[in-house]
Order: sequence, then C-alpha cells, then structure tokens
Amino acid sequence: MRYDCIIIGSGPAGLSAAINLKTYQKNFLWFGNANLSEKVEKAELVNNYPGLPGVSGKELLQAFQKHKEDMGLEITDKIVSSIYDMGGYYNVMAENQFYETDSIILAMGVVTANQYQGEAEFVGRGVSYCATCDGALYKGKKIAVVSTSKRFEHEVEFLADLAEQVYLFPFYKDCEIERENVEMIKKAPKEITGGFRAEKLHLGDESVLEVDGIFIMRNSIAPTTLLAKLEMQDGHIGVNRQMETNLKGVFAAGDCTGKPYQYTKAVGEGNIAAHSVIEFLGEK
Amino acid sequence: MRYDCIIIGSGPAGLSAAINLKTYQKNFLWFGNANLSEKVEKAELVNNYPGLPGVSGKELLQAFQKHKEDMGLEITDKIVSSIYDMGGYYNVMAENQFYETDSIILAMGVVTANQYQGEAEFVGRGVSYCATCDGALYKGKKIAVVSTSKRFEHEVEFLADLAEQVYLFPFYKDCEIERENVEMIKKAPKEITGGFRAEKLHLGDESVLEVDGIFIMRNSIAPTTLLAKLEMQDGHIGVNRQMETNLKGVFAAGDCTGKPYQYTKAVGEGNIAAHSVIEFLGEK
Repeated sequence: MRYDCIIIGSGPAGLSAAINLKTYQKNFLWFGNANLSEKVEKAELVNNYPGLPGVSGKELLQAFQKHKEDMGLEITDKIVSSIYDMGGYYNVMAENQFYETDSIILAMGVVTANQYQGEAEFVGRGVSYCATCDGALYKGKKIAVVSTSKRFEHEVEFLADLAEQVYLFPFYKDCEIERENVEMIKKAPKEITGGFRAEKLHLGDESVLEVDGIFIMRNSIAPTTLLAKLEMQDGHIGVNRQMETNLKGVFAAGDCTGKPYQYTKAVGEGNIAAHSVIEFLGEK
Repeated sequence: MRYDCIIIGSGPAGLSAAINLKTYQKNFLWFGNANLSEKVEKAELVNNYPGLPGVSGKELLQAFQKHKEDMGLEITDKIVSSIYDMGGYYNVMAENQFYETDSIILAMGVVTANQYQGEAEFVGRGVSYCATCDGALYKGKKIAVVSTSKRFEHEVEFLADLAEQVYLFPFYKDCEIERENVEMIKKAPKEITGGFRAEKLHLGDESVLEVDGIFIMRNSIAPTTLLAKLEMQDGHIGVNRQMETNLKGVFAAGDCTGKPYQYTKAVGEGNIAAHSVIEFLGEK
C-alpha cells in the first residue's frame, strides 16, 4: 500500500499538517511521539499564540491533544531512520519497516543535539542510525552504541545479540540493560576517526575505543541524514513560500525550516505544507 | 512622534503581529476594525486552527478578542487611504491625519471588492479614495461618490459642502444623507472613461454621468493604491519567507500575501512579520 503522505514530527507544525490532511480525507501516516511534543509541554508561558492568551506549555499541549483526539488523529510512535527516493515516490524506514508514500512533510523540529566530530563523514561507513538496518553487518564484531532514550533499549539488545562486544553510552536515566558483552561507559564521545571506515571513537577524556562500528540512537536525526539530497539553507531545510523543498513531493514546516522558532509560525507552515501536498497529489 | 511600526489590518495576521510587537514593547499603532474581523465572525465552522478544535467563527473571534483585551492591545478604528515613502520612514494617512512610522506591516486581507474598469488608470487624475485629501479640488464641481459603508457619511457630507453636485452611490442600508445637491443613484457603476482625466462614469444600464471627479470609499484599498511602488505577485503582495516586501521597512502577512487563505497561515505570517520588524528596528 502506498500512502498519500507521511508526516514526520508531532510538534505544532506536524499537528497542523495532520489536521488539514485529515480534513481533506487523505490517506496519510503521522510519525511522532504519542505525547505530541515534550518541547511544548515544557514551555513555561506562551502568550503569543493568538486565541489562547497566557497559557502554560502544558495547557497549550492539552489543547493540541484535545484537537488531535477530536479529529481522531493517530500517531505512529516510531522513529524514522531513513528515507529513500524511489523516483516518483518515497520509501520511509521506521524501526524495521518500510512505508511507501507519494509525498512527505518534514516537521521534525530543530535537531538540538550536536553531531560528533567525524560523524557525518562516516555515515554508511561504520556510523549507523538504525540497528535493524545495519546490525547484521556487525555479527561477532566490536561496536559502540550511543543512545539518548530508553525507547532504544530493544535495539541495543538486538545489537548485543549480534555483536561480540558493545560499548554502551546511555544518555538517559535508569538504563536497564545487563549483559555480559555490554560495557556501560559514563564518558562523553567526542570524535570519530578512521581510514575509509570508522575505526576509533575518541572520548572526552582523550581515551580511545577501537571499534568496527558506531550506532547512534537519537530521537531526531538531521534532515540530510534522512534524505541525503535535501538542500539546506543556513543550517535549516531550504523551502520556498509553498514549503516545497528542492525534492519533488517533499515539503517541510516548523522550526526545521528556520527562525523564528515560534509555535504560531509552525502551525502556519504546517497548514501551508498540507495545502501544497493536497495540490501536489491533485496534479499527480 | 514617529512610531516603530504601523500595522494595517485587524484580522488574524494583524492580531498576531500586534501581540508580538506588544510583547517586545514596541511603540506601534494598529489600524483596523474595533471588532477585529467581520470575516472571522461570519465563518460557520473552523476546524483547523490548532488548539481550538471545532469552533464557530464567532467563538474564534471571541478568543481573539479576549487575547487582544488580555494584552491591552488597542485598535485605531480608521481607514488608511495612502502611504508615502519619505526615504527612510513612511507617512501613513488615515482619515485626515498623518502618522510617521519606521516600518509597516500590511495585513489588510484580500480586497474582495473588484475595481471598476478604468479605476486604476485614473487614480490621481479624477479618481480619489480620500475626501479630505482631494475634496478641495472639486469646489463648485460635479462629482460621483461611491460609498460602501455608513462610516463614510461624514466624508460625503464634507464633499457635499464643497461640490456643486454630488451623485451618490450608497452600497449600504439606511443612507441618511439628505441634501439638495446630493442625488442618490441606485444603479451600479461599471466603467470610468475620459481623456487625460476621468470624465465619465458609465453605469450598468448603459447610462452615463458626466463628472469632474469620482470618489470611491471602500473599507479596503488595493495594496498598490496605498503604496504605488509595492511589487505584486499573481495579484498578491510579493514577499519572501521573512515577509519582507520589495520596499525596505514594509512587511506583509496574511491573505494579502497569497493562498492558502487560512487563519492558521495568517497568524503564522503575522508572527514572522513582527519578528522581522523587530530585527529591522534593531539594525536601524
């Protein structure tokens, strides 16, 4: 089955896009957090969202959640790790499964996590964001795994089943993985180096781990890591006023398209992106 | 006194801009309707304004009005008839008064009223939108006055004091003007013709009035009539993603910048325009 559209991200931009695609009865999938947005929830006071004066982030999130429920919108709580341009449609990979779609709305916010030095250089040559996709390549080998969330533990377990040795960097509380071949490391990675492939992970204290591969599990992935040919502009996804990116059928909305980082801007752009998708599907 | 900014229009885009300029404590003036927006009020059901699911236009307007009141925002209920580029700042004319400002946000929505044939051609040569500005030119002369609202009656009276003969086309109920030299006409104007200046007003029934001038009083004026050098794009004000127009210090937001005509898009653009103004003022 091929979807009309896949929305990636469940902040205000993704929600606004989803509301409009639902209104137009499009057959779409919406990847994000079941909770919608932790970032909105944590906002202290929002006073410039027109129509909802002086709300706390929690109240604004509740209003968004009510809207989502009233419209019967469903979120697929999976992390998208890559997107493949199939020439005329796209294949979106999320936790072990491919989803075909005619169009995409990128609404993943800004990636606040900085990449490690050398990370971008070695993607596909020892650096991976997807255990399911690349795990088998490291059977009987030595790997490092950086994980920012408990939700990745099943992927870490999967990697530990395959690899001989796992150096695990858990950047969250209460890591519950206990395995003979998993060594928990409480230092910060700093740089990845190697020859053709990644070979070394340098830590903040200048120590070095020799590894065959490095898995990095983050809640958000840099847009160009998802879609290599996506054009960026000043560190954000380049879009025009219709929220079209340089790739046909790929649209973007919200913080990922640039400043100002504002909920109001995000919902506006989500609305425009959805309308552009509807037009795009009509022409197709 | 010179204002930091003048916002023209009190729909969702203007409101969003005003909220943000107020938050940043800018010294601005906001022209619009005391009621904010008749168009929003008349909407039957709005289901795609994130955070306010399934509201009537009336409810959405009330939410907007509450936001306006909570923030202590004030509307100057006057109609802007022209803007003069003073080279570094602007002079905004609204009902008999000039207001100086460093920047402008145009948020006047789409002008749904069609212009008459020949109207644009004769602006400044017999066609006027401002009784106060141009009335004196028609002392002892014959003029036609098209008025779309009761609020213009004092301007019509002013013109009747000056002109010898007024042909009045009132496009509203309960016109209360009773003057010897004012003839009420219940036909629709169709075309303006003339030589160098406008000379004739052609009516729908093919009859023709010989006049020295034609005053047209509408609630909204076409953007290029306000600001002659403003660049348009496909019938809307041309803007970039920062909502900058081709004129330095002049920004635009909402329906006047193009489709989709959506409240969500409008508030998003109003937010962006305000942030661009804040940046512009900072550089100045």
